[in-house]
Amino acid sequence: AWKGAPQIEGEGGWSFKPRGRIQIDAASYNGPSGLSGGGNDHLGTITEMRRAWIGAQGTMAGNVGYRLDVSVGGSSVSLADAIITYKAGRKVKIMLGNQRPFTGFEDMTANLYSAFMERSSVSEAFVFERRLGLAAQYSDKILTVQGGVFSDTLSTISDDAARSWSMDARVVASPRVAGGILHIGGSAHYREQGGSVVTSRYRARPFVHPTNLRLIDTGSLASDGETQLMLEAGWISDRFYAVAESRWMKVSRPGMSNPTFNGGYVESGYMLTDDKIAYSNAAFGRIKPRKGIDKGGIGAIQLNTRYEWLDLADAGVMGGHQQTAGLSLVWMPTSHLRFYANYGHTWVDDAVVTANGDGSYSLDTMAMRAQIDF
Amino acid sequence: AWKGAPQIEGEGGWSFKPRGRIQIDAASYNGPSGLSGGGNDHLGTITEMRRAWIGAQGTMAGNVGYRLDVSVGGSSVSLADAIITYKAGRKVKIMLGNQRPFTGFEDMTANLYSAFMERSSVSEAFVFERRLGLAAQYSDKILTVQGGVFSDTLSTISDDAARSWSMDARVVASPRVAGGILHIGGSAHYREQGGSVVTSRYRARPFVHPTNLRLIDTGSLASDGETQLMLEAGWISDRFYAVAESRWMKVSRPGMSNPTFNGGYVESGYMLTDDKIAYSNAAFGRIKPRKGIDKGGIGAIQLNTRYEWLDLADAGVMGGHQQTAGLSLVWMPTSHLRFYANYGHTWVDDAVVTANGDGSYSLDTMAMRAQIDF
Amino acid sequence: AWKGAPQIEGEGGWSFKPRGRIQIDAASYNGPSGLSGGGNDHLGTITEMRRAWIGAQGTMAGNVGYRLDVSVGGSSVSLADAIITYKAGRKVKIMLGNQRPFTGFEDMTANLYSAFMERSSVSEAFVFERRLGLAAQYSDKILTVQGGVFSDTLSTISDDAARSWSMDARVVASPRVAGGILHIGGSAHYREQGGSVVTSRYRARPFVHPTNLRLIDTGSLASDGETQLMLEAGWISDRFYAVAESRWMKVSRPGMSNPTFNGGYVESGYMLTDDKIAYSNAAFGRIKPRKGIDKGGIGAIQLNTRYEWLDLADAGVMGGHQQTAGLSLVWMPTSHLRFYANYGHTWVDDAVVTANGDGSYSLDTMAMRAQIDF
Repeated sequence: AWKGAPQIEGEGGWSFKPRGRIQIDAASYNGPSGLSGGGNDHLGTITEMRRAWIGAQGTMAGNVGYRLDVSVGGSSVSLADAIITYKAGRKVKIMLGNQRPFTGFEDMTANLYSAFMERSSVSEAFVFERRLGLAAQYSDKILTVQGGVFSDTLSTISDDAARSWSMDARVVASPRVAGGILHIGGSAHYREQGGSVVTSRYRARPFVHPTNLRLIDTGSLASDGETQLMLEAGWISDRFYAVAESRWMKVSRPGMSNPTFNGGYVESGYMLTDDKIAYSNAAFGRIKPRKGIDKGGIGAIQLNTRYEWLDLADAGVMGGHQQTAGLSLVWMPTSHLRFYANYGHTWVDDAVVTANGDGSYSLDTMAMRAQIDF
Repeated sequence: AWKGAPQIEGEGGWSFKPRGRIQIDAASYNGPSGLSGGGNDHLGTITEMRRAWIGAQGTMAGNVGYRLDVSVGGSSVSLADAIITYKAGRKVKIMLGNQRPFTGFEDMTANLYSAFMERSSVSEAFVFERRLGLAAQYSDKILTVQGGVFSDTLSTISDDAARSWSMDARVVASPRVAGGILHIGGSAHYREQGGSVVTSRYRARPFVHPTNLRLIDTGSLASDGETQLMLEAGWISDRFYAVAESRWMKVSRPGMSNPTFNGGYVESGYMLTDDKIAYSNAAFGRIKPRKGIDKGGIGAIQLNTRYEWLDLADAGVMGGHQQTAGLSLVWMPTSHLRFYANYGHTWVDDAVVTANGDGSYSLDTMAMRAQIDF
Repeated sequence: AWKGAPQIEGEGGWSFKPRGRIQIDAASYNGPSGLSGGGNDHLGTITEMRRAWIGAQGTMAGNVGYRLDVSVGGSSVSLADAIITYKAGRKVKIMLGNQRPFTGFEDMTANLYSAFMERSSVSEAFVFERRLGLAAQYSDKILTVQGGVFSDTLSTISDDAARSWSMDARVVASPRVAGGILHIGGSAHYREQGGSVVTSRYRARPFVHPTNLRLIDTGSLASDGETQLMLEAGWISDRFYAVAESRWMKVSRPGMSNPTFNGGYVESGYMLTDDKIAYSNAAFGRIKPRKGIDKGGIGAIQLNTRYEWLDLADAGVMGGHQQTAGLSLVWMPTSHLRFYANYGHTWVDDAVVTANGDGSYSLDTMAMRAQIDF
């Protein structure tokens, strides 16, 4: 079988497929002048090798499988998915290794398939990242249940004194309603800090990734743990989808009041070409253009809108507020090639990065991505 | 051919096979309270992505080959085997590149095939690591001779002023005796420090790898070189094996007396299922379960015991003593999937990490590993 | 198709090929005693894992392609080529990603195919390195035109405040003249520093790469940009080639005089065996031995000579002068295996590394490389 790259199959359930992706970004931020925090005036134009991953996946005799994705785009290497899997029947899968906790719709959608270049700012702020853990998933046509126990990220796990752990669970129902799929679900996340790690920090870039400046930021909070609740709802029908998520993150601060931060988004999209939104396993999947450029067509084109908010101020923590209204045009010439053009208008209040001393201002962002994967 | 992943063959001696491995560890150390050196009380439970490797091997026309294994599990990348090989006849092989010096039985056994999760502590203490070098190997049915000249590890080689080099050689006879294979051998290692590197350090973790705490440790010794001698003996017969090694490391300290450290182990194992121990090329190989889970069986199960010792105190160096008695249960559902459960009782004397000021104490360790490779 | 490794082909224009290379170097420098700058006396013998790369390339439906080469030989990972390509017709190619700007003949020749172990010192001094950019190439039988716009290297691009960018273009004519190919061309490079990066530095190792000592070095120059012009000429005919390049780099220093540095080389080579120099796309290509060792032959043997110069002193900058006369013997047992033996005599004037306080001295270098690629 060919899936961007060859999937080579052996007898008895063995298979092997190389994996890789390249995402190249450019963003032009037009912010106010006089930004604190070392940024250039207006931030300006920044380019980035957003992701370069190389890896492999395969299956083995006995319903065993693996996936190993290595991120090599920066100066240091890091592991994305690095898991051993076991299919315990048609509906149940067990996953051991470095993997995403089951935070919600956009977090569980692969970064190759998202409607905008980046997930909404709450995803970055509430520290969506892979952790080493043992997890299981049940999925049938209507129901998806996912859960696991996790220790830490691989970047901190080598520190003997880092002893945090967390539990994560997610439930989604996906019944057919009104000619489409209704997606209703929620997730819960409970994490205890331990050992030497007794701080938490929540912050987010404005809209896209090339800048490292975070306008809103709680700073390091003395913390012994956190609890997150999330609700997600959507409706996907052929060329159209709408989805919304909201998350509440409560930070436990010993001897101080516990702030609850909130963030979320409302997003909607439409295929301008005669193509279908891909939805499976309670997340978006790969859109396969009906008439790709290899068939003399123009490929698939999708137009998406999003409003997102993030509120990092509560119980004496003054991290600021950020909202973005965004527009995303996605062109998929073939199933494994994508170009994004994104526009976002972001406004912040009580931001920690000020413009001439004022924490309330707005900025506009134009961004583009070229993406290939195999 | 399929060897965990496809080995693709071309005409004229060309071949290519992707390679990879994932090893995920969890260990629960129950040490004494009041440990110095920054560890938590009793050390506690620690998880680790022990190894994530990705790479390739292949052959070329003209009896040439290569292997390239990249370790990507931590935040920095490092090379494992990175060698160019040449088969000069059926019995002689020349290897150029980053490779293991020929230290002994357990060091030359791939970490995929070891009977315990980790080699004995002397292997870590006497700095078993790959070095850049030119080596050759002769092997027939009875005799294996290996030797090479090495410069330095890749992590220090980029430092202009690091100019150490070493010679290593190993000889093993493997005659058939009493219905099994008698393994008798020894190795010698001579190393000169040079340039800016004029210190040596010997230390080891207790039993398994997740913690970074070394209870016994010589500290940095002003040194211009080292000499190691090693003896190894074993007997392997069908489902049973026994093996023992002992090493003596003499450190040359200009103007001071030269300490000799010693460490070793006695190990024995038995296949609980009707499977065979795999032995080839003077080391353990891959055990292939007769009835894997893909064939409706339970796979292969092996039970191993080990006593190991390490003595880092001599000639005024007070590095401490460590002994461990260990038990290892290895379950191989298929030939490329392994689960380890290890228990070890470790006792130290004159350790540099003290418990409430006392350098003599013991700790118990339960550890598990999940491992897949291709 | 087999190209060192299998190139697996799917229907509709899809293909995939793994990539990799290993280059292992040893050099023995015989310099003067009393070298400043921390080097050992005479520099001495140094070994190096010069390059270990692993990656993949492929094509997709719709004339799209990619290449991803990851350098894993040091302790930090870095990307070599990481590009998405599009063939807009038979003669035009568009490349987006981390790639080489189009500096000249030896820079555009892959490091696998160069006649000496290293490019001439001007290539290192004038900072030949891949940058993130968008480029295009036109090539027919006679004419090659290449150009692009680039931002920064991936190692500095993640720094928000680094905002340099550059334009590069190269034109080469390759008519058939006197039974061979006449190669005539030139390139231009314009770069503006921006943001926090307002310095430039030019320096080079002596002849080969294992040492990190640069005898000549401008040090950091306060700079807001640079302009480089280059001329290249050569003649390639069957077993023989000759090529010469010269570059002028003008550094813009606000409020100070602008120095122009110059460097270049004259090189010539001859196949001692009955093999052909490989030239394509305005650069050297892979030499395929007519009688490789797999066919009972000796492979291809090439003898090359080079004179190179580099002048880093101008307008008050005292970076020094360096010249090298070199000899290179290259043995290619097969098309994917190479051994180099290089000898170079280097002499410096006004060098920043002095020998007993004198900046004028010479050194001899013997160096070897073993190289495999797939």
